[in-house]
Amino acid sequence: MRSAPLALSFLLLAGLTGLASADEGMWMPQQIPALAERLRELGFEGDPHAFAELTGQPMGALVSLGGCSASFVSSQGLIVTNHHCVQSALQYNSTPERNLLVSGFVARTPEDELSNGPGARVSVTTQVLEVTDDLMRRLSPNLTDRKRYDVVELWTKERTAACERDGSRCRIASFFGGLKWFEIKQLEIADVRLVYAPAKGIGNFGGETDNWRWPRHTGDFSFYRAYVGPDGKAAPYSKNNVPYRPKHWLKVSPKGAGPGELVFVLGYPGATERLQTYAQIEELTAWQLPRSIRRSGEQLQILGELAQSSPEVAIKVETRIRGLNNGLTKNRGVLEALIQGGVLEDKMERQRKLTAWIAASPERLATYGDALPALAALDTEAAKTSERDAIFAGLRGGRGGSAILGAAATLIDSAANRPKKDLDREPEYQERNWARTRDSMDRSQRTLDPAVDRALLRYQLQEAARLAPTVRLVPIDKAVGLSPDMSAEAAGKAIDAYLDRLYAGTKLFDKDYRLALLGKSPKELSAINDPFLNLAAELLPLRDQLREISKARQGARYRLVPRYMTALLEESGGLVAPDANGTLRVTFGRVLGVDSVDGLFYKPQTTLGGIVEKQTGQGDFAAPKLELDAIAALRAGRETPYLDPALHDVPVNFLSNVDTTGGSSGSATLNARGELCGLLFDGTYDSVVADILYEPVRTRSIHVDSRYMLFVLSEVDAATRILEELGQGAR
Amino acid sequence: MRSAPLALSFLLLAGLTGLASADEGMWMPQQIPALAERLRELGFEGDPHAFAELTGQPMGALVSLGGCSASFVSSQGLIVTNHHCVQSALQYNSTPERNLLVSGFVARTPEDELSNGPGARVSVTTQVLEVTDDLMRRLSPNLTDRKRYDVVELWTKERTAACERDGSRCRIASFFGGLKWFEIKQLEIADVRLVYAPAKGIGNFGGETDNWRWPRHTGDFSFYRAYVGPDGKAAPYSKNNVPYRPKHWLKVSPKGAGPGELVFVLGYPGATERLQTYAQIEELTAWQLPRSIRRSGEQLQILGELAQSSPEVAIKVETRIRGLNNGLTKNRGVLEALIQGGVLEDKMERQRKLTAWIAASPERLATYGDALPALAALDTEAAKTSERDAIFAGLRGGRGGSAILGAAATLIDSAANRPKKDLDREPEYQERNWARTRDSMDRSQRTLDPAVDRALLRYQLQEAARLAPTVRLVPIDKAVGLSPDMSAEAAGKAIDAYLDRLYAGTKLFDKDYRLALLGKSPKELSAINDPFLNLAAELLPLRDQLREISKARQGARYRLVPRYMTALLEESGGLVAPDANGTLRVTFGRVLGVDSVDGLFYKPQTTLGGIVEKQTGQGDFAAPKLELDAIAALRAGRETPYLDPALHDVPVNFLSNVDTTGGSSGSATLNARGELCGLLFDGTYDSVVADILYEPVRTRSIHVDSRYMLFVLSEVDAATRILEELGQGAR
Repeated sequence: MRSAPLALSFLLLAGLTGLASADEGMWMPQQIPALAERLRELGFEGDPHAFAELTGQPMGALVSLGGCSASFVSSQGLIVTNHHCVQSALQYNSTPERNLLVSGFVARTPEDELSNGPGARVSVTTQVLEVTDDLMRRLSPNLTDRKRYDVVELWTKERTAACERDGSRCRIASFFGGLKWFEIKQLEIADVRLVYAPAKGIGNFGGETDNWRWPRHTGDFSFYRAYVGPDGKAAPYSKNNVPYRPKHWLKVSPKGAGPGELVFVLGYPGATERLQTYAQIEELTAWQLPRSIRRSGEQLQILGELAQSSPEVAIKVETRIRGLNNGLTKNRGVLEALIQGGVLEDKMERQRKLTAWIAASPERLATYGDALPALAALDTEAAKTSERDAIFAGLRGGRGGSAILGAAATLIDSAANRPKKDLDREPEYQERNWARTRDSMDRSQRTLDPAVDRALLRYQLQEAARLAPTVRLVPIDKAVGLSPDMSAEAAGKAIDAYLDRLYAGTKLFDKDYRLALLGKSPKELSAINDPFLNLAAELLPLRDQLREISKARQGARYRLVPRYMTALLEESGGLVAPDANGTLRVTFGRVLGVDSVDGLFYKPQTTLGGIVEKQTGQGDFAAPKLELDAIAALRAGRETPYLDPALHDVPVNFLSNVDTTGGSSGSATLNARGELCGLLFDGTYDSVVADILYEPVRTRSIHVDSRYMLFVLSEVDAATRILEELGQGAR
Repeated sequence: MRSAPLALSFLLLAGLTGLASADEGMWMPQQIPALAERLRELGFEGDPHAFAELTGQPMGALVSLGGCSASFVSSQGLIVTNHHCVQSALQYNSTPERNLLVSGFVARTPEDELSNGPGARVSVTTQVLEVTDDLMRRLSPNLTDRKRYDVVELWTKERTAACERDGSRCRIASFFGGLKWFEIKQLEIADVRLVYAPAKGIGNFGGETDNWRWPRHTGDFSFYRAYVGPDGKAAPYSKNNVPYRPKHWLKVSPKGAGPGELVFVLGYPGATERLQTYAQIEELTAWQLPRSIRRSGEQLQILGELAQSSPEVAIKVETRIRGLNNGLTKNRGVLEALIQGGVLEDKMERQRKLTAWIAASPERLATYGDALPALAALDTEAAKTSERDAIFAGLRGGRGGSAILGAAATLIDSAANRPKKDLDREPEYQERNWARTRDSMDRSQRTLDPAVDRALLRYQLQEAARLAPTVRLVPIDKAVGLSPDMSAEAAGKAIDAYLDRLYAGTKLFDKDYRLALLGKSPKELSAINDPFLNLAAELLPLRDQLREISKARQGARYRLVPRYMTALLEESGGLVAPDANGTLRVTFGRVLGVDSVDGLFYKPQTTLGGIVEKQTGQGDFAAPKLELDAIAALRAGRETPYLDPALHDVPVNFLSNVDTTGGSSGSATLNARGELCGLLFDGTYDSVVADILYEPVRTRSIHVDSRYMLFVLSEVDAATRILEELGQGAR
């Protein structure tokens, strides 16, 4: 189905005056036709309108994995994405004896393909509809902020319910901070299986050392397959399921991409904050990033020590460690760029310009004048309790939190919401999410370890113990027996004693037991008298109180941010891409090297030669023997169709100035003919700050070249079944 | 005076067939006219014969500082060289209160110029004469190897004495391992004064971290001035001396050098070993380099700890540390390239080719067949005692040895030689070297520290204690009370007890006392009963014995190496530059970037921007505030004539593919118009192995751009007197 045309107002914002900087932008597919001129300049000969057709070629081939992007590459539902996007599938199927995280995996027959486990999902966007006007009809200017929040939430729930009546999954997404709203419909496939992943020494070659760095030599690609019921409809995992047959899939190019070539990246970029206010970026610089960097470092130390204790624990914490490390490096880069790189200053300058522009006209001053000061006041108010609120949120899980306390909180919250009518429940506890909650609780078992869980909770409680007297987490103080005047040593003792009781008394580490509690009433849960459930129940009133405050603030933001955005867009002129928000986007640029530090140039491509240069056989640089042999064979004269004649070698990774961010990982990189010439998997260190301010000269994305993917499949892993399915034939 | 024309045989070796690789080569000035065609290809429009005129322009402007190269840059004897070449002058003039090594130095008036101290020398080559035939007339094939050595030595002494009759300093130098001999005459100026050195944060910016690395931002330049007596003749330091007025000097270009430009480097490269046999390079790889790397690391640790003890000690050990570090990094690079880079294998292949070439003709086999096997046998024999011999040599001084034991050995050896006729003395104790010996003993006082000296001697004695029973240093065993069967602990105790006696009993740390002993007879020295003099006397017989063995081996080499070289040169064809041997050379190439590791390109130039990027304010990256202010002023709009329009910044360093080595440091880098556009000061890490095998694709030299020199002089240090003298005027 063709998606609805963009609202006129949206296109008017275009003006097409700002095209010089049009390489910045994770464009909504519907915006691409308006960029036809720029695309022609870059050598595109196709029809830009094709990108607006979500169910045509190539857009119909794109899928989201939730957190990663991917695309169909065969008529049999074969999906390509990054190796780092299949970590949890590898982990789910690993044992200490057969660690797929290290060895990789090749399904030699269809029967070998491994279920990714509960909660795996492949989503295909089928419709995007602008619904801003529908919401505007419901919102009156006289509403209190708190009430405005409720109106938006109820409207969202009603639209979602209506949209999902045909079995789709829907999301009402806000763009430009609530200035525009779109209803996004997705087909969701729940039976996803692991087909191929290279060995860690290829898929994560360079590891944390090379992460966010160039030159890079990472074979960051893997394959899934989507399965559906025999009737062709989405269905949970079953042996009787059959491969899904997508209407569209991408052809994997055996030619890769070369310097100067136009490339498109199609995927689901997660979140950028380029349109945020200066005050928000300052808060990020002064508090959020330094806090996150400190915490990640400390949590990594805890996890690193635990990982040494046994191979089982090492497998369980691997994805947590990889995620924390990744975020740590990224956050460091962002902070460096903000402070030393002058991005914060640049932001301030831009906001000054905007403020001056508003002040220059009495009319603008009347319309927009109070938005920025009011937003700043909101932020100042929130900052008063931000440390406490962050610690409280962290108690409920995430990479650095206790998964068991998170599960207990989910059980308690879920029980509190269940008696209500579905439309009155908090969104995450609506019926449409029940299966997800169960899947996620099931899935988390693979990473659960009492010692790890306890160490992380201990870390969080120590942070709570250090809070200032005015912003204590009172239910925690009460439960643990903490007070603000305690010495660190005394607090530590109290925490350890409390943790002894918690972990000795709980049965929640038992997956079946835990899952059986889903659906129980508050009374039933209370009767169990599990210490974790009790703690979660004690935290509930504070949680509700904080949620109320947060809803009122969000209601205020619904009122203020659209006005700030309108001013910003009017002042900047030209076509502007909305901040990334996990929805489908199209972005484009060229394969392009870049100046690094003074005197150094990052060439646009790397080759197999660099793998041999970096190889140490240890740690992050341990390419498997099979690959080294394949490279040696090549050097000795063995022929391969994937050799680049200009490089006299097989290309491994390449750089482009395409605008991407987290969540773009796994995105198909297409050449001008619409073929998959690579996969986006990272950005350079200089680029991490682009989430806040895009700097076109230095920002570079990193891709794995399709020739390297095919070389590894054919010369290293002899994955002939997959090669044939990709139309590459056997060699 | 025009130097004698090259012997015909030498030019015949040319053949001019191998010009493709002619960018390799530290050419003798007389060889340059034969390279006219290649120079024209590179865009040279001048007369190549000018380089063969040692007393014309530009060659007459070049000087040697002994270990470094330099050149006159004004009619008043102003000399430019590297900052790292004036370290000992800075050290000689430093006190803990006024540490010129850190602050740098600007002589604002002529009176401010500081004497470099005794032993400083500026040498100007005035004549190069081929004297091979003269030697050949003395050598009969029937001589024993030992006798052959004596004939060569006596001939050398006689020629030297005759050559020096006019007050010059002369050297009879062998080229191609004794195949060719040249008599080199130099004018020697002994009153050298420090005029200017930038602060350490400029002159050594990047320090050990950046040493041998690119990108580089080092202001590695300084100025000396040569002084002579009022009569214009060389004279020792005196207040009445006047600036020397050279006939030729180089114009410092305010335009520097840009990418692709032809550049010449003129100077005194120290030593390369490109023409050595495979067996020698293998010995280097298997024993010499690993040993040197291990020892430098251990000695650096000892010195590093001592440097912490006080600022005085820190100043005293700074040049030792810098030298050891420099050598360590270089040796690591050479070893890496030999093994991982495949240079050793390449060497083996070349020798195989040579052997096959010899074997292919009965005539060649008869002429050259036994040379390589006989040389290998010599090396094998020497290797049997190489560890012992190296430890023995190390006891007499050098960067890692005891300066006091070195001085004692000099006093004892000198006394043993003095009663002989001058022509019978060992060369270093001939009368022509007496003043040097005294100067060097005087000068060494500045770096003398009993604790440092003792720690280094202790290290050497511990090595002696570990020698195998068959190759003991018997006089050391006897003096210290060591035996091969002692435990390390027992040996350590014996060494410490012995060192207690040595250092408590000696008066040699007193400079005047030490100098007063020069000229004393063996009997008088023995009567003093100083423990260091006693030890040196006990070592003398072994020293004489080892010297005898070494003379016999060298005599054999005089017989064998010329035949090996003739074969090598005949087989390779084309014009070949002799290995560097500390004599004046001309080398040329282009300003050129280079591929680094896979995916990375070293751009040919760096700029001020990189200094700001690297600046941390600490350790190796602490540019002075004055410089940072000057850069900020530039950014704020201040004009400078040294800005590069293409770079939009002032260039700091540049790369070229000119062939250089240690000793080339400080060499003038000339543009095609013969102006000084920079100074050679280093090579990239990939280039260090070029001393053994030149690889034109990766080898790069590093230069400081003359524009950076002028920028620092004018904008940072306001050294207007020097700028005016350089014809740059005041700003």
